[in-house]
Amino acid sequence: MRFLRYTANARTALGILEGDTIAEITGDLFATWTRTGRQTPLAAARIEVPLIPPTFYAAGLNYVAHVKEVAESRGETPNFPPQADIGYRAVNALTAHDTDVVIPADAPDQVHYEGELVAIIGKTAKNVSEADALNHVFGYTIGNDVSERTWQRNDRTFFRAKNTDTFKPMGPWIETDLDLAAATTIIRVNGTETIRFPTNDMLYGIATFISRTSRYCTLVPGDVMWMGTDGTSPNLKHNDVVEIDITGLGTLRNRFVRAGA
Amino acid sequence: MRFLRYTANARTALGILEGDTIAEITGDLFATWTRTGRQTPLAAARIEVPLIPPTFYAAGLNYVAHVKEVAESRGETPNFPPQADIGYRAVNALTAHDTDVVIPADAPDQVHYEGELVAIIGKTAKNVSEADALNHVFGYTIGNDVSERTWQRNDRTFFRAKNTDTFKPMGPWIETDLDLAAATTIIRVNGTETIRFPTNDMLYGIATFISRTSRYCTLVPGDVMWMGTDGTSPNLKHNDVVEIDITGLGTLRNRFVRAGA
Repeated sequence: MRFLRYTANARTALGILEGDTIAEITGDLFATWTRTGRQTPLAAARIEVPLIPPTFYAAGLNYVAHVKEVAESRGETPNFPPQADIGYRAVNALTAHDTDVVIPADAPDQVHYEGELVAIIGKTAKNVSEADALNHVFGYTIGNDVSERTWQRNDRTFFRAKNTDTFKPMGPWIETDLDLAAATTIIRVNGTETIRFPTNDMLYGIATFISRTSRYCTLVPGDVMWMGTDGTSPNLKHNDVVEIDITGLGTLRNRFVRAGA
Repeated sequence: MRFLRYTANARTALGILEGDTIAEITGDLFATWTRTGRQTPLAAARIEVPLIPPTFYAAGLNYVAHVKEVAESRGETPNFPPQADIGYRAVNALTAHDTDVVIPADAPDQVHYEGELVAIIGKTAKNVSEADALNHVFGYTIGNDVSERTWQRNDRTFFRAKNTDTFKPMGPWIETDLDLAAATTIIRVNGTETIRFPTNDMLYGIATFISRTSRYCTLVPGDVMWMGTDGTSPNLKHNDVVEIDITGLGTLRNRFVRAGA
């Protein structure tokens, strides 16, 4: 089932995507909801960020080639994380499918995409086992963990390297059913494929991250966990369009524009 | 004016503290609110966390002695942050005044307090100047940025070192008027003073952090910015009670307990 948040006729609502039609629902996605009977063609709706998470978790370094390439770019030996220690991003940076990623005028030129699977927590999770962890996932979407690498290397924190407004596209919708073992992540820039990798080739899987995080931190419905990316990205330029496909989840597409360009 | 969130008669509400009495209000703290006419003695109320921020910002290393002591504990040369790069904490860890900080059973023994001034954003801030920054602050409260130093040194992220459930006491209330230049932060463990420092002795002030952060990240009403701490802390043990006073803001008090002890 595909849930989305959208705006049509100047009203923002939740809905279920059925073919090319949105059936509006009302209520709590993670508890009880009902259909309102109102229908909207997908083509007549603006897709919004599917939700604003209470906590925005991000796995960071979680694919082999990405860890190696990040280390090489710094002249360092690859240092694989010894355990599944989760990191964070900030909600101010979220932006919807088909919106612009705005690169600040003073940003250096190493603006990169990171195409990521996003797991959305549906049930409160505290001290859950790996075997039970996926029962706490409501569904999945796609994230683009946009990063400016010069700032990422030199600033004391990731505040602007990764959390600049619009640097976190997420969407287009939440899919409750995903065959993760069969999924491939494919990234295109201006229509040309730049990378593809098996979505499930993670160093630490979703269940491992949820279980370990929940030993210390209570996960709540609506929390998101971005699972990391593989490989690297070209330096993105003004007007580049980045598309991220994950099998079964659709495509997250965003244009990159440089402020003042 | 002092705003607080509290529970009385099994109902959680917002109120204004006037002497020892809470006058209940309803509405949006940052927009329009009205008095309901209901009054509750402070002694009959349980104080709650004053708010749950959309984004939980933290300055981190922002006082001279703290930066030096952290460096010395690692056998490193003090490395003062060259600019005001803001960091993050997570809302799962928030806990109210007079609640217990629960140290996980597997935590090493270097559990420390960090007594901090907290600025609460009241107006949307994007690209604000330092001169205009404080006009976007609604008020102030106190935070305890509890940290387990072994995890802080060794984990890849601060997820459990700083964001374990209950590791972020905040409160007791929001004070809209603060004479920052005259304020002193005083910390006591089991009633004995362990440190005092001028609250305003920061490397980078609130206006600097707000202005710089807002160049990249939109701050919104309810966001909090924890401003860092000075000095260091003894290793806290089961049943230790930590009190943090900031002149004019009151006292944030929490007992530390070790799970399973």
